[in-house]
Amino acid sequence: MTSTVISLEAVLEKADQYRNWGKWGPDDELGTVNNITPDKIIEAAALVRKGKVFSLALPLDAGGPMTGAYGRVNPIHVMLQDGGDVASGAQEHLAELRYTDDAVYLVLQCATQWDALAHIYHEGKMYNGYGTEAVSSQGAAKNSITAVKDKMVSRGVLLDIATYKGKPWLDVSEPIEAADLAGAAEAHGVEVGPGDIVLVRTGRIGFVRERGSWGDEYSGGPAPGLAISSSEFLCERGVAAVATDTWGIEVLPNETADVFQPLHIILLVNAGIHIGEMFDLEALAADCREDGVYEFMFVAPPLTVTGSVGSAINPQAIK
Amino acid sequence: MTSTVISLEAVLEKADQYRNWGKWGPDDELGTVNNITPDKIIEAAALVRKGKVFSLALPLDAGGPMTGAYGRVNPIHVMLQDGGDVASGAQEHLAELRYTDDAVYLVLQCATQWDALAHIYHEGKMYNGYGTEAVSSQGAAKNSITAVKDKMVSRGVLLDIATYKGKPWLDVSEPIEAADLAGAAEAHGVEVGPGDIVLVRTGRIGFVRERGSWGDEYSGGPAPGLAISSSEFLCERGVAAVATDTWGIEVLPNETADVFQPLHIILLVNAGIHIGEMFDLEALAADCREDGVYEFMFVAPPLTVTGSVGSAINPQAIK
Amino acid sequence: MTSTVISLEAVLEKADQYRNWGKWGPDDELGTVNNITPDKIIEAAALVRKGKVFSLALPLDAGGPMTGAYGRVNPIHVMLQDGGDVASGAQEHLAELRYTDDAVYLVLQCATQWDALAHIYHEGKMYNGYGTEAVSSQGAAKNSITAVKDKMVSRGVLLDIATYKGKPWLDVSEPIEAADLAGAAEAHGVEVGPGDIVLVRTGRIGFVRERGSWGDEYSGGPAPGLAISSSEFLCERGVAAVATDTWGIEVLPNETADVFQPLHIILLVNAGIHIGEMFDLEALAADCREDGVYEFMFVAPPLTVTGSVGSAINPQAIK
Amino acid sequence: MTSTVISLEAVLEKADQYRNWGKWGPDDELGTVNNITPDKIIEAAALVRKGKVFSLALPLDAGGPMTGAYGRVNPIHVMLQDGGDVASGAQEHLAELRYTDDAVYLVLQCATQWDALAHIYHEGKMYNGYGTEAVSSQGAAKNSITAVKDKMVSRGVLLDIATYKGKPWLDVSEPIEAADLAGAAEAHGVEVGPGDIVLVRTGRIGFVRERGSWGDEYSGGPAPGLAISSSEFLCERGVAAVATDTWGIEVLPNETADVFQPLHIILLVNAGIHIGEMFDLEALAADCREDGVYEFMFVAPPLTVTGSVGSAINPQAIK
Repeated sequence: MTSTVISLEAVLEKADQYRNWGKWGPDDELGTVNNITPDKIIEAAALVRKGKVFSLALPLDAGGPMTGAYGRVNPIHVMLQDGGDVASGAQEHLAELRYTDDAVYLVLQCATQWDALAHIYHEGKMYNGYGTEAVSSQGAAKNSITAVKDKMVSRGVLLDIATYKGKPWLDVSEPIEAADLAGAAEAHGVEVGPGDIVLVRTGRIGFVRERGSWGDEYSGGPAPGLAISSSEFLCERGVAAVATDTWGIEVLPNETADVFQPLHIILLVNAGIHIGEMFDLEALAADCREDGVYEFMFVAPPLTVTGSVGSAINPQAIK
Repeated sequence: MTSTVISLEAVLEKADQYRNWGKWGPDDELGTVNNITPDKIIEAAALVRKGKVFSLALPLDAGGPMTGAYGRVNPIHVMLQDGGDVASGAQEHLAELRYTDDAVYLVLQCATQWDALAHIYHEGKMYNGYGTEAVSSQGAAKNSITAVKDKMVSRGVLLDIATYKGKPWLDVSEPIEAADLAGAAEAHGVEVGPGDIVLVRTGRIGFVRERGSWGDEYSGGPAPGLAISSSEFLCERGVAAVATDTWGIEVLPNETADVFQPLHIILLVNAGIHIGEMFDLEALAADCREDGVYEFMFVAPPLTVTGSVGSAINPQAIK
Repeated sequence: MTSTVISLEAVLEKADQYRNWGKWGPDDELGTVNNITPDKIIEAAALVRKGKVFSLALPLDAGGPMTGAYGRVNPIHVMLQDGGDVASGAQEHLAELRYTDDAVYLVLQCATQWDALAHIYHEGKMYNGYGTEAVSSQGAAKNSITAVKDKMVSRGVLLDIATYKGKPWLDVSEPIEAADLAGAAEAHGVEVGPGDIVLVRTGRIGFVRERGSWGDEYSGGPAPGLAISSSEFLCERGVAAVATDTWGIEVLPNETADVFQPLHIILLVNAGIHIGEMFDLEALAADCREDGVYEFMFVAPPLTVTGSVGSAINPQAIK
Repeated sequence: MTSTVISLEAVLEKADQYRNWGKWGPDDELGTVNNITPDKIIEAAALVRKGKVFSLALPLDAGGPMTGAYGRVNPIHVMLQDGGDVASGAQEHLAELRYTDDAVYLVLQCATQWDALAHIYHEGKMYNGYGTEAVSSQGAAKNSITAVKDKMVSRGVLLDIATYKGKPWLDVSEPIEAADLAGAAEAHGVEVGPGDIVLVRTGRIGFVRERGSWGDEYSGGPAPGLAISSSEFLCERGVAAVATDTWGIEVLPNETADVFQPLHIILLVNAGIHIGEMFDLEALAADCREDGVYEFMFVAPPLTVTGSVGSAINPQAIK
């Protein structure tokens, strides 16, 4: 379906055009999250009108979308103390109280998640020009997701492309162009501007649920998603972040034969726009279709794992 | 300092008095989080007046407060791909794009965190009467923290007991009685009611920072904290949750010779009030002292680890 | 292929007949490993005639046989320090020396492994009558694999059933009866007696290699393997341990409609015979076919993980 | 106690003198393990005279020597299924059989262990000249410990330096010179030659046991150990491997002001001699003192973690 073949040069041109390195100083680690001003936060809170909260997180468990490729396994949850210990008398050293306890081995980008600005490199540089030495085995010294630990609070806007196109879900490899984003915004009656966090729905999680399995493609395979032209919409409006309900936000196969995930290079490396992936937008979208309101307060704090280059999150859309 | 010795009978009496089992039906897994109504959420959002966000999370890293006792180790962060791989050419199978990736072994209650209602048992029962078979090695089938995945959005109130008592921080083993909570609320000009989430500051994280180490006592040792009488304040007002800046919310040594952590039995097991621990309240408290406003919107979504009995969190206080 | 349906009663009868509880005292945690006498060890060492060592271990990596079912994931190997850190200058705090370091998350029975006597229960009891309280979330207080940390040194005997039956490998679900074991021993010119460790080859790892994948069945699925009658051969001869090149030693589907893995109940729970699984016997078997010698010194020490109920191992057959 | 200050030049001179790069071909990954010939293995087996086995492994548990520095935490053992699950009915989907299962997060060099030849770099090179690109976040492509998966079977010789010096244990920072090794060998009535694996006892584990704690120094701190001159004894005799009962085999503080762990550079990087650390030699040494026999068969297979740069082991000394 992704018929247009776009050249590396065209990608690099857009990367140049939208590059924000140095815009907020040589030490900046926030990128367009800088566009979330105090007024924006106040504006976001004012969108809470019916007191309804949507969790946009997939469950973190062994049934998740990961295949194990490249070390990305699903979460491994282990109990350190459980009800069996309570029942068997293993805690009788405690007076009256009994407890349970647990831990998880969590690949930080295994499900609903933020990519940190440190997640992607191009030609040896990440956002704001930091080099490869900035991410050692000890983690990221620059652009860790912890840089935004108190920043992911803003106005959220849902652009439900599947509904806009009159479908329950987009087809595999169906591209979302800038015009689709603009058209959906208009149809939904919302404007998108600086500091907004844009959630783009393809409906693929709905498809996966109906099928009853993640299938071969949901994680790492062909997917509908943002085309390179979408950068025009996102970068020119100064959005703080963009997320989809797919594994990698981009249309796959990519439009580029000689660049893998070109939008990551434009958005994350150059423009400094944070990327969210595998957001479960199904219940939120149903509500938006029902009340016609596609904007809301959005709060999605990352875990504070020092030096981490991404974070599993439980994003909250509050209407 | 905890001079009053309170009997097991007195604890059980309070447990009986404040027990909410069955109040929201036999299948309830929310407890007093049920008190967070849509109106409460709208009221919370209306408290966002200056557009300022505070992250209340400690860093998740090897320098955290855990000692390893009972399997509670500090977070272990590992890089699956890092800048060294980008530089060495280990990713040359990818076209143009290069990436970093990571994972964490995370004890779910190792730092700033929620206790799930499944975290504590008394006499073989947890909140709402569920038995020990409800938490196996596969996790909690009832009262997992995931039950509140879209519920931890409400009005937050800071009760800064240290400031109220005219100290930078409370002494080790200094109890916080119901009267202290009421006095601080009055001094701060706030009322506490149903569905509120109450954050109680002892100042001990400030003390730890000044000392430059967690010391022997911060995790698992003697601490200032809530006395049993505090349950009168918290339960009678119907708060949704209560959190402190200490490891276990309660005054330690406990006031009870024959019950360990008696308030956990009253609040978590019986009243169904969620408990938060190791919240970093220092920056928030400084701001509240400055502007005199001790209420705010509070958003603290747990991770969605299926069956988990607690969750590391990054709570957001939004003023 | 497993046509005979054997009743629960028949299984229990054999379990009774071969039960060794109390035989080596009420505190015994070794079972028939007690049959490995000093003379047996000397006899084993005398079998080292050509100075050739065979490692019988599968590789421990992401390409292993585990499917993730029941939490049994393949090993997760992570680098704590690597060559990229050396190259990038991340270790310049060290004088001259540079290093690499690593860790693994290892499900202890994910590949070539010993089952501890604590691995299996029947009617609430494991070997020697220890109850369920003996294995809490803190591990096994009795019958841990660490009980044999200096015991897995003995004479090894290979019974190559596939070769004996004139096949490269047994068919899925092909049973190995007592008569097959006796016949193979005779054909190989070996006797099996007290304290021996018997390695039974089905050839399925050879099949998997030829096919190029573990397939659906290798881990957890249908398999050739030991039939219930094999217990007559193994228990009456007093072998210390028995291992196969399949995931669970037994023929699957089992011969029993109402008992899962009945031989585990007879051998591990009752007779106290340690069980080894997923031993890679291909190279060893080729050598035995060549020189006609099916006995050797066998050394397979478990890891010393305190309280563990199994252990990944790298067994050494020394001829 | 380490009074002599040795220069970097002197270290590099010894490194040059004993360098074995290319000796066994440009692709060699074994180093002096090549000296373990079939005859050597036969000779080793002939040393089994009384049928007694010693496990030289420390327990792998939370009470181990690691401090957490540099990510080296003690083993984290977790139960995936335990007796509590059996008792509570959580396994009633299984017919008759019940089971326990477990896993471990294991830093591969956290206790008794082999250093792989890939563990140490000097001037960007490891043994046989392989570069930093050979160890990525995916592990070691060269010189992994798995290269010796069937090689660590040889004659073992115990050199009990503490006993030789008439002490229960050496003092902190007491050096072991070449002359001490030669003197102990003579006193013990053993010769050391090509392919031997030499175990050097300082007695510090005995000291730790008497003190009742690992103390500040056992892991990573000052220690008695091999001085640089010991390389003359070890390299000129062509030993396959050398191990001690201390954390890093070398005397600490090192004799060199400007090189950390200089013997690692000489032995591991240049001579290709495998290094073993934290071997528990106490029981073996007591037996050797008793029967006067300081040689034995030694079998210490590493785990087969693909690409690993070290391995926890359970070495077996068989007399």
